[in-house]
Amino acid sequence: MMSKKIKVGIVGGTGYTGVELLRLLAVHPNVELAAITSRGDAGLPVADMFPSLRGYVNLAFSDPANANLNQCDVVFFATPHGVAMSQAQALLDANVKIIDLAADFRLQDTAVFEKWYKMPHSCPEVLKNAVYGIPELYRAQIKSAQVIGNPGCYPTTVLLGLAPLLEQGLIDFSAPIIADSKSGVSGAGRKAEVATLFAEASDNMKAYGVSGHRHHPEIHAQLTKLANNDVQFVFVPHLIPMIRGMLSTIYVKLSEKANSLDLQALFEARYKNERFVDVLPTGVLPETRSVRGSNQIRIALHKQVSSDYLTLVVVQDNLVKGAAGQAVQNMNIMFGVAENTGLEVVPLLP
Amino acid sequence: MMSKKIKVGIVGGTGYTGVELLRLLAVHPNVELAAITSRGDAGLPVADMFPSLRGYVNLAFSDPANANLNQCDVVFFATPHGVAMSQAQALLDANVKIIDLAADFRLQDTAVFEKWYKMPHSCPEVLKNAVYGIPELYRAQIKSAQVIGNPGCYPTTVLLGLAPLLEQGLIDFSAPIIADSKSGVSGAGRKAEVATLFAEASDNMKAYGVSGHRHHPEIHAQLTKLANNDVQFVFVPHLIPMIRGMLSTIYVKLSEKANSLDLQALFEARYKNERFVDVLPTGVLPETRSVRGSNQIRIALHKQVSSDYLTLVVVQDNLVKGAAGQAVQNMNIMFGVAENTGLEVVPLLP
Amino acid sequence: MMSKKIKVGIVGGTGYTGVELLRLLAVHPNVELAAITSRGDAGLPVADMFPSLRGYVNLAFSDPANANLNQCDVVFFATPHGVAMSQAQALLDANVKIIDLAADFRLQDTAVFEKWYKMPHSCPEVLKNAVYGIPELYRAQIKSAQVIGNPGCYPTTVLLGLAPLLEQGLIDFSAPIIADSKSGVSGAGRKAEVATLFAEASDNMKAYGVSGHRHHPEIHAQLTKLANNDVQFVFVPHLIPMIRGMLSTIYVKLSEKANSLDLQALFEARYKNERFVDVLPTGVLPETRSVRGSNQIRIALHKQVSSDYLTLVVVQDNLVKGAAGQAVQNMNIMFGVAENTGLEVVPLLP
Amino acid sequence: MMSKKIKVGIVGGTGYTGVELLRLLAVHPNVELAAITSRGDAGLPVADMFPSLRGYVNLAFSDPANANLNQCDVVFFATPHGVAMSQAQALLDANVKIIDLAADFRLQDTAVFEKWYKMPHSCPEVLKNAVYGIPELYRAQIKSAQVIGNPGCYPTTVLLGLAPLLEQGLIDFSAPIIADSKSGVSGAGRKAEVATLFAEASDNMKAYGVSGHRHHPEIHAQLTKLANNDVQFVFVPHLIPMIRGMLSTIYVKLSEKANSLDLQALFEARYKNERFVDVLPTGVLPETRSVRGSNQIRIALHKQVSSDYLTLVVVQDNLVKGAAGQAVQNMNIMFGVAENTGLEVVPLLP
Repeated sequence: MMSKKIKVGIVGGTGYTGVELLRLLAVHPNVELAAITSRGDAGLPVADMFPSLRGYVNLAFSDPANANLNQCDVVFFATPHGVAMSQAQALLDANVKIIDLAADFRLQDTAVFEKWYKMPHSCPEVLKNAVYGIPELYRAQIKSAQVIGNPGCYPTTVLLGLAPLLEQGLIDFSAPIIADSKSGVSGAGRKAEVATLFAEASDNMKAYGVSGHRHHPEIHAQLTKLANNDVQFVFVPHLIPMIRGMLSTIYVKLSEKANSLDLQALFEARYKNERFVDVLPTGVLPETRSVRGSNQIRIALHKQVSSDYLTLVVVQDNLVKGAAGQAVQNMNIMFGVAENTGLEVVPLLP
Repeated sequence: MMSKKIKVGIVGGTGYTGVELLRLLAVHPNVELAAITSRGDAGLPVADMFPSLRGYVNLAFSDPANANLNQCDVVFFATPHGVAMSQAQALLDANVKIIDLAADFRLQDTAVFEKWYKMPHSCPEVLKNAVYGIPELYRAQIKSAQVIGNPGCYPTTVLLGLAPLLEQGLIDFSAPIIADSKSGVSGAGRKAEVATLFAEASDNMKAYGVSGHRHHPEIHAQLTKLANNDVQFVFVPHLIPMIRGMLSTIYVKLSEKANSLDLQALFEARYKNERFVDVLPTGVLPETRSVRGSNQIRIALHKQVSSDYLTLVVVQDNLVKGAAGQAVQNMNIMFGVAENTGLEVVPLLP
Repeated sequence: MMSKKIKVGIVGGTGYTGVELLRLLAVHPNVELAAITSRGDAGLPVADMFPSLRGYVNLAFSDPANANLNQCDVVFFATPHGVAMSQAQALLDANVKIIDLAADFRLQDTAVFEKWYKMPHSCPEVLKNAVYGIPELYRAQIKSAQVIGNPGCYPTTVLLGLAPLLEQGLIDFSAPIIADSKSGVSGAGRKAEVATLFAEASDNMKAYGVSGHRHHPEIHAQLTKLANNDVQFVFVPHLIPMIRGMLSTIYVKLSEKANSLDLQALFEARYKNERFVDVLPTGVLPETRSVRGSNQIRIALHKQVSSDYLTLVVVQDNLVKGAAGQAVQNMNIMFGVAENTGLEVVPLLP
Repeated sequence: MMSKKIKVGIVGGTGYTGVELLRLLAVHPNVELAAITSRGDAGLPVADMFPSLRGYVNLAFSDPANANLNQCDVVFFATPHGVAMSQAQALLDANVKIIDLAADFRLQDTAVFEKWYKMPHSCPEVLKNAVYGIPELYRAQIKSAQVIGNPGCYPTTVLLGLAPLLEQGLIDFSAPIIADSKSGVSGAGRKAEVATLFAEASDNMKAYGVSGHRHHPEIHAQLTKLANNDVQFVFVPHLIPMIRGMLSTIYVKLSEKANSLDLQALFEARYKNERFVDVLPTGVLPETRSVRGSNQIRIALHKQVSSDYLTLVVVQDNLVKGAAGQAVQNMNIMFGVAENTGLEVVPLLP
């Protein structure tokens, strides 16, 4: 057990991933919240913006200039894309670890990054050593990482859904992998925009980003890496009228090798020791509310009758396992704390 | 123009398709509502159960035994499966046309019907002459039909989405057609069940029926007919926290022939004269609220870059084009009334 | 019947009252939509912003400068407060009638207007002749009005709920009239704001404006006028996670005179000939969905046992009877068209 | 600190208060879950019904007959009204404490109980010694109680909102106290009923129980006790389309004595040491989501300008402080555990 608390800074604490980090870290037994920055809201007590934190967070937002982030053990960036990479080197020089919840350290190919995020990558050397932060895939590297690129929300569902198949070479790549993903509206962030107003997004659903979503290259890169093979990947995200929750329905063609295997058993074995990955019994399908507020991800698999296609259904809370919870899980690993510390929040149902 | 009104009876007016029929028929200029039956609620004024109809429907529910349905011109069945077929022959003998919103007359193969609906088909002779009620596919037959099997809600989205491709032989059947469909909760009907309570279904989503949904054989039969070919079909329905609205995302592999064609133009041409089918301009994706309360169906198509896969996104109001609106459209055709009569309800947005 | 259509202009068609006017006017048999202006979106086809209007509205937004509003018979202002009064005199000079859905012509006391809307009133002479647009209270004046101040959404529920009592002197003014009002989120308009994002307003409710809401002085002025007496009025609005719908629960102390009267009968008699006011039978309480999309307002009254307090429950669709529907009703009256023309939309339930 | 765990039994674990108890107790450090009974679902693993509890609750529902509740330290009844009183004496004889979340031990006047719950009270002797379980009002009695009548959800908001005024005699009882209360749909329980289906209750609101709600006599009895005076009380509950959350807006006439006091300071002083009661700063109004999933109750007060009326706005999570959370708080007090043990769940926002 640690005797000293981890000093944590949060850059950009006013969005949904920011307040979600605060919800989790405020009661994390090994954490001391040192600073939460916001240029626009410096001076405002955090609990004035988020009254849910009254009695739990007594800090005010501080101006980034005065936040003394250099004295933290780790800094989370819950900021727009591009912020973390501008401050990364200075923090690393001060021996501060970095967990970026934006995209700056997710894509190793800077050309791809620049194409999708419309900005040059300002610290490719830091990027090279950054680790993609899905513990169930890269735990060893996370343990010794200085910089984590915390994954996008969609990728976690698709990658943990497919990993057991990819690792064992059980997918026939002659057909594309298709991920039909559905997200609650909080995934769009806490920005004032007409399209995500209650009166626009409620009692309504839509597909979006069909012609190109930023998580496509991120997922594609990881699939290719896990498959050790180029992969055709079709990805259609949808916006669903719920606050939290993400469900990906994934359709894959199985290789011949797969037909002789008990895939259910294979998935159960693969994730047996993973606290946050729950493979559901055959025939049970997951609901997003079964993980509301928790770091759990649940996976069901269904083999289409008389077919070589497999359907996977994967759910998570997009703000927890899809963002802040996974970030805390990464932090726990980086600092040698039990991986589930601060993350044993029972899902809120109903 | 008709001089005489169509005398309409509704059997089973207490569910959502029933009240939706009433909403449309109450102000239909060519309709006289003659009887609405409900065994359990006989005597109750319809507007006491559905206060939205106060001032529009003055009838009370009548007992089926006393409803004199024989004197109607047409009877809609908004009942559980199995009711329409038990009364069909008697009505036909009295020269009454039938539009069944349940499944009794949707599946020509009675063995398939019996497998999925767990009851024998009691009037196979009537079934033989029944027409599957999608006007955009079977308008000529509907015109002279005595019995309409009004389609299930999901099938209309999938079939109208795929018809232009199937009719032209543009699908490569070596890969399955995949329909990932999402429905609002009203699709489950107005039955008291825990799973569709507000506190269960709100802020939540799930896939269901992965191992077999009754609309699978219905869609499969129609696809096979339109394709003149056996078709692999993967269908995963999802329950979405909204009252109305259905969105199907359909993934198909195109045949080589398709690659030289302008599919957008082909869809626009196919549906140019269809009042209720709207092919969206390239790059525009539909939202379910854009059809809320209306008989419109909207279709978008997107060709995956450097791929032979096409994605279709189709939306409708599951209770209108997916049920009662389409039934009224069928009635209009059967009685020689302009097809859009009573159906020019502007969608309710927001 | 009119032979010539009413030429209608809409200033500011991009908000919720604007699109709601369009929904109703697009199929109004006596209306020709001549122009819809929007400075920011000039040139954009209206149906591109609101796809629900595809096939119904073929106009594009026009720049106010080029809209030739002078050639309209009537112009609706669905704009922020202050716009209508800046253009009113010029339109009146061109013999164009005005229906303002903002607050410019609601408050006869310009000092009160200036206090609550933080701007001077720029045309007090026009204001003097403006009529407060609740047909059930001021039909005769509306008939001959050139300028209508269309009421705020909350006031219509409170005023129509209380009018029968006020007109008969049945309220004891020693206690305040208390209106506890609840509104769907569309009442906040189609402005990009954090507080009305789906992820903020869904699964959440709150009171707001307790220390002062702009509809307080508006209601207070009308109550005072109807009561011919100064009235204490306590008003607490609440924001409810639904798109449309408004419910006001009103608590009043009855005068002694009221105790000998059948109030239910009095309300029924008062509104017997009002197409859009529905007094519910004793013991029945209204739901907001029973008026969704319609111009109906429903009222229930309940006398507290062994008490001299009366509770009124009033529901309307805030965008219809609370805004655009009432505006169309006013237009119908001003142009001698049957009052319900274009307003017989059956409520959308479920 | 306790060395031994509290052995807990739950009777009727399949409703919303049952699963909420499980959510809280599953991770309560001083609790051992011994049995959860359900006649209808005996044998079913609890986590099969509530997948949110996978990994947290390994028990199956047991038949009440075999549950050995006599060996528990405390039994919670999350059952319909009438169950607890039928088993109370036997459990007390076995030295088991009882916390009833239904109404059996809330009303000391058995005639009132019988009138509202339509059943005779079967153990008036036990009732006499039962304590009404609001710790902030009756902590000392709870400490030594054998039987707790855990309050209804509405009463907690009204009573904690008014207690500081009642205790100090600051209300003028010549006017009624009016509580306009709004509840999320989970308050109606997990029973299969049409009225609380998603498609009925979503995008909809209504008042209900205007002519008599069971919480009226409960609140009235407590108000009278706290006031030491008979109190006129008007109570109108409303159903709001949200899963959890309750907001009561309370209107009271202040006594003259109140006018010279700083009521804000008085409330803050009254609740200064109460972990779960949060008096908001002047001018801040609470949202229900600020307490989602937590045992917190938040209170705001607003003095109407130039008036002797005070408006209180009180929010809680109806399933936590309004039910299961308060029950756990009572248990903690009864067993000498720190009152907030197991209840420091940060509210889930967004």
